[in-house]
Amino acid sequence: MSAAESLQAEDVYFSTNPPPKQLAAHTALAEAFITQHVAANRRVVLVTSGGTTVPLEKNTVRFIDNFSAGTRGATSAEYFLSAGYAVIFLHRQFSLLPYSRHYSHSTDCLLDLLSEDAEGRVAVRPEDSDRILDVLRKYQSARRDNTLLLLPFVTIGDYLHELRAVARLMAPLGSSGLLYLAAAVSDFFVPPERLSEHKIQSTNIVEKLYPGEKGSKTPSPPIEDEETFDNFDASPRVPRSKRLIIDLDPVPKFLKSLVEGWAPLGMIVSFKLETDPRILVHKARYSLERYQHHLVVGNLLSTRKWEVVFVAPGRQDQWLRVPRHGGWGDAEGRPLRPDEAPEGDPEEEIEALIIPAVAQLHDAHIVKSNSEKK
Amino acid sequence: MSAAESLQAEDVYFSTNPPPKQLAAHTALAEAFITQHVAANRRVVLVTSGGTTVPLEKNTVRFIDNFSAGTRGATSAEYFLSAGYAVIFLHRQFSLLPYSRHYSHSTDCLLDLLSEDAEGRVAVRPEDSDRILDVLRKYQSARRDNTLLLLPFVTIGDYLHELRAVARLMAPLGSSGLLYLAAAVSDFFVPPERLSEHKIQSTNIVEKLYPGEKGSKTPSPPIEDEETFDNFDASPRVPRSKRLIIDLDPVPKFLKSLVEGWAPLGMIVSFKLETDPRILVHKARYSLERYQHHLVVGNLLSTRKWEVVFVAPGRQDQWLRVPRHGGWGDAEGRPLRPDEAPEGDPEEEIEALIIPAVAQLHDAHIVKSNSEKK
Repeated sequence: MSAAESLQAEDVYFSTNPPPKQLAAHTALAEAFITQHVAANRRVVLVTSGGTTVPLEKNTVRFIDNFSAGTRGATSAEYFLSAGYAVIFLHRQFSLLPYSRHYSHSTDCLLDLLSEDAEGRVAVRPEDSDRILDVLRKYQSARRDNTLLLLPFVTIGDYLHELRAVARLMAPLGSSGLLYLAAAVSDFFVPPERLSEHKIQSTNIVEKLYPGEKGSKTPSPPIEDEETFDNFDASPRVPRSKRLIIDLDPVPKFLKSLVEGWAPLGMIVSFKLETDPRILVHKARYSLERYQHHLVVGNLLSTRKWEVVFVAPGRQDQWLRVPRHGGWGDAEGRPLRPDEAPEGDPEEEIEALIIPAVAQLHDAHIVKSNSEKK
Repeated sequence: MSAAESLQAEDVYFSTNPPPKQLAAHTALAEAFITQHVAANRRVVLVTSGGTTVPLEKNTVRFIDNFSAGTRGATSAEYFLSAGYAVIFLHRQFSLLPYSRHYSHSTDCLLDLLSEDAEGRVAVRPEDSDRILDVLRKYQSARRDNTLLLLPFVTIGDYLHELRAVARLMAPLGSSGLLYLAAAVSDFFVPPERLSEHKIQSTNIVEKLYPGEKGSKTPSPPIEDEETFDNFDASPRVPRSKRLIIDLDPVPKFLKSLVEGWAPLGMIVSFKLETDPRILVHKARYSLERYQHHLVVGNLLSTRKWEVVFVAPGRQDQWLRVPRHGGWGDAEGRPLRPDEAPEGDPEEEIEALIIPAVAQLHDAHIVKSNSEKK
C-alpha cells in the first residue's frame, strides 16, 4: 500500500467510525494543558491505559474487551509525574487511575480505612494515615500544578479518534513529547455497517413479532424457533443454528500513522503483551522494524509485574526485573518462564525501573533530535 | 429434552467446564453465613451482579463481556440490607459493591474527599463528612452483624459453578430464601475444546516459528503471512483471510435447573434487559412461562434507572417508575420510550421502589409455601 493509499484508507476509517461525543471537549482540554507545559518547558507524556472495547451492537449490551485493569498505565503515570513529566492519561473509563488506584479494585476498600470519631467526624484510621498521606500529597500536588489530565475512552473507535487528536496536538512539544502506549488495544472490530442495531437475540423473536424485519444485521445463520432453542445439550456438537458467529475485521494499524503523520517528532513507546514466551521478543522486534518507532516494551501476561524486556533499534534486548527476597536462583540472568511468576505482588513496582529507563532513552532521543536540527 | 437428559447434559457442562479455584473457599463461607442467618431466623437473598465474561483464549487476553457496572445489583443489595435481609453478593470482580459504590466508578474520587489537617492527620473534608457518615454507618453495621457476604466471579463458567453451589446451600432456608439474579449473564460461550491456548494472533507467527504447531484451536480461516497483513485497507470488503471469526455455543439455560433442582423452594427473580421496547414484555412473559419461576423484572438499557416492569404469574404487568421533578407529562401512565430517559440520574434510586415490592411478593411466596405444607 502506498503512502497516499494509506492516508486515504485512514480517512475512510475515521469518517465511517464516528468520533466520541467528548472529542471536542477533550481536545480543548489537551490543547490548553500542552500549551501550559510547553511554556513551562516541561516534558509531556501521553500515557494510554486500559483495554479498548469492541461493541457487538449499536445499543451495546455485549462487547469484546481486552484484559487490562489499567495497572501498568496508572502506575507508570505516577512515576512519570515523579520524574517531572506532565501526564495526559488517556484511559479506559473506570479503569485504574494514578493515586486512587491504591484504594480501588482491591480489598483495601475506602470504607475500611475510615472511622467515626466521638464528635461524628469521619477520619482515616490513625494506623492507615501515614500510608494515605504520602499518596494524598502527591495527588494534591498534581492537581495544584495541573500536571495530570484525565481523558477517558471506552471503545476502540473512541480510542483511535482521541489518540489521533492528542498526538497531533503534541506537535509543539517536538522531541520532548513522549507517547507511552500501554493501553490494550483491540486488533479486530465490527465495522459500523455490520453492527446490529439492538441486542443480538438468541432467538428469532424480532422476526416472529415483526415479520419482514431483521433483528440483527450481523451475518449469522438462520436461528430456529425459540421453543426449540433449549438448554443443556448432551451431544458434543451443537447444531450450527444455535450458535452465534461473530465476524471481525482487522483494526487499522495506527502505529504507522502515529510515527509517520500524527506525531513524527515525539518518542514513541509501544507495549507488546503475549502469553507465549517463544514469540514475545520476535514480535516486539518485528513491530519495531515495521513501524520504525523507538521502543517496544515486551511482557508476558503471567510475569508482567516482575519483568519486561526493552527492545529498541540498534540495541541489545534489555531485560528489567524487580528484586525478589532471596534472589532469583536458577532464573538469574535469563527470562522467567510463565510458570515462574511468584505468588502475590512484588515489593517494588516494576514501573519504578521502567520509567527511569524510558526517561533516559527520551533524553537520548531529544539530544539526537537537537543535533539533527543543527 | 427429558428431565433425565437435561440432568445428564448439566453434568456434562459442569464436568467439562472447570470450577473456579475459589469455589471450595466460597462454599465454606456461604455455608457458615447461611447457617448463622437460618439460626437467627433472618431471610437471606442471593444477589447476583455485574457481567460475566466469555474468555476467547485459555491464557485470557481477549474476552466477550456484558455491559454492566453492577449498579443494579449493588444498589439492590443495600436496600435488601435495609429491609432486614442478609445478602450474599455474588458479583463480577471489581464491579460496584454495596456502599463503596458511592465512591468508586465516578468522578467523586476518594482522594478528592480527603484533606490533611495541621497535625498531618487525614480526615474527610467537613463539607463531605455527613454524606459519608451515613454510608459508613450502614457499611459498618453490615460488617458488625455479618449480614453481607461478598463473593466475586469473572467468567460465565465461574458464575454458573458458584450459582449452583450457593443455590444448593440455600435449601435450609426453604421459602425464606430469595434469589435475585441481576447479573448480566452471557448467552453464548466458547467451549473449552475450542479455546485457543494462547492469545489469538492476527498473524501466523506461531506456525512460522514452530512449523507443524497450531497457534489457535479456534476454527478460523488460514491467515496470510504477516508481512501482507497490513494496515488501513481502502477497499470496503476486507479479505476473509484477514478477519477473525468467533464461533460461540449457547450457554446452558441454568434458570431451568435453578427452579427444578438447585433451589426449588426459594423465590426466584430474574432480570430481562433489552434495547428494543417492542419485545421487552413479551420476552419477560415468555421467560416466566418457560422456567416457571416467580418474577421477571424487565428493563430497557436506556431507561433502566427510571422504570422497570414486574412480570409475574397470574398478575398484570406492573410498571414502577421513580418520580421526576415536574412530573412525566405526556408519558404519564404508559412505558417510557427509549429516547425519553431524562439526562442524568434520578433523585431517588429506583431500587428504593423495587426492593419493597419484591419483599412483598416474597412475603406472599412464604405464606403460600407454608399453607401448601399444611
